[in-house]
Amino acid sequence: MPAATSPRISDSPAIRDRPRITVICGGVGAARFLRALTSVVDPSTVTAIINVADDMVLHGLSISPDIDTVTYTLAEAIDPERGWGLRNETWAAMDALGRYGDRNWFRLGDQDLATHLQRTARLAEGATLTDVTSEIGRAWGIDVTLLPVSNDPVSTRVTRADTGDEISFQEYFVGEQHDIALSSVRFDGIEHATATPEVLAALDAADVIVIAPSNPLVSIAPVVDIPGVREAIEQRSVPCVAISPIVGGAALKGPAARMLDELGHDATASGVAQLWAALTDVLVIDDQDAHRSGEIASIGVVPYVTDTIMAGPTRSAALARAVLSAARIASSIRPTEIRS
Amino acid sequence: MPAATSPRISDSPAIRDRPRITVICGGVGAARFLRALTSVVDPSTVTAIINVADDMVLHGLSISPDIDTVTYTLAEAIDPERGWGLRNETWAAMDALGRYGDRNWFRLGDQDLATHLQRTARLAEGATLTDVTSEIGRAWGIDVTLLPVSNDPVSTRVTRADTGDEISFQEYFVGEQHDIALSSVRFDGIEHATATPEVLAALDAADVIVIAPSNPLVSIAPVVDIPGVREAIEQRSVPCVAISPIVGGAALKGPAARMLDELGHDATASGVAQLWAALTDVLVIDDQDAHRSGEIASIGVVPYVTDTIMAGPTRSAALARAVLSAARIASSIRPTEIRS
Repeated sequence: MPAATSPRISDSPAIRDRPRITVICGGVGAARFLRALTSVVDPSTVTAIINVADDMVLHGLSISPDIDTVTYTLAEAIDPERGWGLRNETWAAMDALGRYGDRNWFRLGDQDLATHLQRTARLAEGATLTDVTSEIGRAWGIDVTLLPVSNDPVSTRVTRADTGDEISFQEYFVGEQHDIALSSVRFDGIEHATATPEVLAALDAADVIVIAPSNPLVSIAPVVDIPGVREAIEQRSVPCVAISPIVGGAALKGPAARMLDELGHDATASGVAQLWAALTDVLVIDDQDAHRSGEIASIGVVPYVTDTIMAGPTRSAALARAVLSAARIASSIRPTEIRS
Repeated sequence: MPAATSPRISDSPAIRDRPRITVICGGVGAARFLRALTSVVDPSTVTAIINVADDMVLHGLSISPDIDTVTYTLAEAIDPERGWGLRNETWAAMDALGRYGDRNWFRLGDQDLATHLQRTARLAEGATLTDVTSEIGRAWGIDVTLLPVSNDPVSTRVTRADTGDEISFQEYFVGEQHDIALSSVRFDGIEHATATPEVLAALDAADVIVIAPSNPLVSIAPVVDIPGVREAIEQRSVPCVAISPIVGGAALKGPAARMLDELGHDATASGVAQLWAALTDVLVIDDQDAHRSGEIASIGVVPYVTDTIMAGPTRSAALARAVLSAARIASSIRPTEIRS
């Protein structure tokens, strides 16, 4: 992979005025970034390629947590406190399920259930996950193109450090509230999965590729490890900009920092740069990680320092603009310094 | 099949004081009869063998309408106005499903959804429908033994008289609100279905068999036509008492009368007697059908005339007692007049 020797700030017009932006996405962090991005660019220029390795069949229902989080967030329907599920949600079905035992550990709201019922019904009718994701997005009035990375089943499996037992991601994330140590992560079925034609086309057509601030190990990895995706990103002729989900050595949400640490990585923006060095030209890092710029540059990734905390629309929009600026920088430096 | 020449009223003690009563059941009418019966006998002496031909998989969920109607009714949780589903139900999931199209024609309440989620999950875990029906019944505190007639899939299919199209029972019953004429009914898969061992044992162990006042053509037929059931009933050594679902030429609820008429039967208590002549010793008919007693007797079924309208607990309990009286009559006359 090509490497940049140092950051260089410019405002090159080398990418088009309305660049086509393809974003590699997990759940909450990606959803918030997409919302920010679509506040500063035409949403129809944005394509989200979304992780499906958290997907599961629960009680017969096909559930796609990351797709739903992105969809509900872009629809301004996400519950702002929980960060997942729908606002003004009710829980009558889950409460009633309690009569039958403890099967209601994975809380599905009543309105949210409708999405899973619809998805399950459409899949049973022969629709692909790509079809139904698009249909559900349109039903919510979303102009961003929402693409599951694959129509094939891929399942994140994690191994508990304490017992050595392998459990599903949702058992870890929801059932254990990610409060246990892990010794390994794998993506069951990924070697037989293929990226959809729509995903490969979106990567090919992109003027900018963005890696959203999602968990590197369980959100971004199972997207880029789908056969064909990493190759498409590595062989791109356009800039790639990633946003570090690690700020000041911690994740803003979720277990990314402790997972990085437990699984032998550096739980810092530098550790993220190492993981993504082969994928991205630029890593957008937070102001409080500015002192890591040299280290990140030495890894071969251009650091771009800004406020990455998406607290409120103004700061979120500023981050989105910063990502576009970083893409212009990468575009300007790629031909000479990166792509030489 | 043996025939009785005339009714004979007696109070023979030939059946035990706490007879084991096995009831052939459809949905609403059967559920109401079971509730009445369990108000006059120990519920643990009662076994319900329930139709499964209305069962379906909808949006990935395994739905058993007749089992649920019986369960919810015995749990005193049924909605008294609708006659199906749970009281104090909410509809958030179905309302939300409306966003995605018109898939919400089959209304599943939020609390009711929990039952389908539980059933679907247990079936996916390898439980049989018999297992999960029993588990759900216990969760509702029901002491009646609830048995699906079969663990195998059977689907009632009806042919529209107007177009000749074959549709599912639920498309007819719920989608069209049974307001179209039918030209035929069949039970898809029934020839390959088998009665469960529990069902055959309940028929074998019964001191009395009862055919509940359910639709003869789409509720009782797909129970008794399961291979093994009709034979077990016909070869019984105990009395069988049926209750006519047709009163004064009409069904108290549902399309039984018009279906009998459309499909070439007599939409009267006499028509029911003809359909069930080979199965039952006695047909309990309503006071307003007393004038059909002679006709029914001539068919070879003992008519037992009483108030069959289950309006309120008192009248319902009286019907249940009448059925037990009719069983004693049948028991007393079987050895001489019926079983000769």
